[in-house]
Amino acid sequence: MTEVVRWQPNSTPKRHTDMLAREEPLEIRVDTRPVSVTMRTPGHDEELAVGFLLTEGLLRHREDILEIDPYPRNRENNVLNVFLSQDVKVNFARLTRHVFASSSCGLCGKATIEAVHQHFKPVHSKRTIESGTVLQLPGRMRRQQEAFERSGGLHAAAVFDSKGTLVVLREDVGRHNAADKVIGYGFLQSQLPFDAHILMVSGRASFEIMQKALAARIPVVCAVSAPSSLAVDFARASGQTLVGFLRGESFNVYSHPERITQEKAKAS
Amino acid sequence: MTEVVRWQPNSTPKRHTDMLAREEPLEIRVDTRPVSVTMRTPGHDEELAVGFLLTEGLLRHREDILEIDPYPRNRENNVLNVFLSQDVKVNFARLTRHVFASSSCGLCGKATIEAVHQHFKPVHSKRTIESGTVLQLPGRMRRQQEAFERSGGLHAAAVFDSKGTLVVLREDVGRHNAADKVIGYGFLQSQLPFDAHILMVSGRASFEIMQKALAARIPVVCAVSAPSSLAVDFARASGQTLVGFLRGESFNVYSHPERITQEKAKAS
Repeated sequence: MTEVVRWQPNSTPKRHTDMLAREEPLEIRVDTRPVSVTMRTPGHDEELAVGFLLTEGLLRHREDILEIDPYPRNRENNVLNVFLSQDVKVNFARLTRHVFASSSCGLCGKATIEAVHQHFKPVHSKRTIESGTVLQLPGRMRRQQEAFERSGGLHAAAVFDSKGTLVVLREDVGRHNAADKVIGYGFLQSQLPFDAHILMVSGRASFEIMQKALAARIPVVCAVSAPSSLAVDFARASGQTLVGFLRGESFNVYSHPERITQEKAKAS
Repeated sequence: MTEVVRWQPNSTPKRHTDMLAREEPLEIRVDTRPVSVTMRTPGHDEELAVGFLLTEGLLRHREDILEIDPYPRNRENNVLNVFLSQDVKVNFARLTRHVFASSSCGLCGKATIEAVHQHFKPVHSKRTIESGTVLQLPGRMRRQQEAFERSGGLHAAAVFDSKGTLVVLREDVGRHNAADKVIGYGFLQSQLPFDAHILMVSGRASFEIMQKALAARIPVVCAVSAPSSLAVDFARASGQTLVGFLRGESFNVYSHPERITQEKAKAS
């Protein structure tokens, strides 16, 4: 809770208290070596760390992780140590954000997509989703988002199965973090691959969101807002169905529309 | 332009064409050495590179830059070389995103704020802003945002003077990039410090937005949506006025409300 001064029409400014979305740094260490600092909303930090390492191409199997511990000398719980099996070879130089972009020679969108595909192959799921199911996702996500109602400052990511049943929802001040958390949840619960699933995000769909979905083998990504050009190019090349502007009773399909099937009678 | 399939109520799905916000990687090099890859909307790349280097604490004066050139062997114009004066000492190890967070021992929000303040002192501007001026900013920003209307996928950042006159507006798929671009514009035009100015952002106010504003000495930051807890803590400690939920006829002031003055008759 924090104190704010509220200005409203035809009234003097008034002090009142307000909820804020929490933002704190999290340092992720692999075998005690720092690899990333991200600003995140505390909570589900193990999922965030594991989801980040998976979507950056470092982890493949649940057994790759021996242990996840808070760093003992940090009392704020903002440092996590991920200890890996000796079988995992870690290329620390690659472990930065946008590792795929920076590793591509002749830097451009196309080269970036190819760099990701060297690591994560395109998806080929034949599973279809009814249009009525797609339309229900934003409402189902919103009903789970209690924190959003209070502070208005959180992004959400959710995984649904192909019938629209919620598997997991996470919120964070950073939308990439929210995606890392739901994917990290799947990894820690040994539920990956999410290859008959839908990733739904509260905001826009960027290249990075699509790349993270591909790392978890997710064939369908839905966003409340617009996708970027590179998100669309990436989805087309990766076999992913990308839905944008999913609001109210309508949506746009930017790639692989064959996975969305018409449903005459919409269940509520 | 791209082809999309539009699903609407009581109608068969229809193909039509749609605008997309462009997203491409940009690699920033300092004296030919790669320091950052960011996903951005092409355009105003020199401003983005310079704004990034300034807000990360590397640049201080216009004369620090000798030259900015596209990397000759990259035909996509996605690599920029920034050549610095010999007087500038570059600590390449520090030049990563969230450099301030990662450099703080005992990682937490408070330590992160202190790390930034070792580099950028708090602001002490006595300039006040009329509440009527604050209320006009979102409309003025929106009228400049033509691209936003078409693609719906861009964040915007704008700098206004204390009377609400627009100095510069930039759009980008990344909101931190939009902030870097307006600050980079001020740097390249030798208009910094923006110490009697307002930074307005289209989305939420994060720690990183406040840090970038402080680097440019901006005393007032306004956001259409919510601030995070660390943005508010940072603003209070940095002498910055932070306005959030600036929409329609009302707004919240989260820190240093003394800079906002009541205005009885609102000019349109």
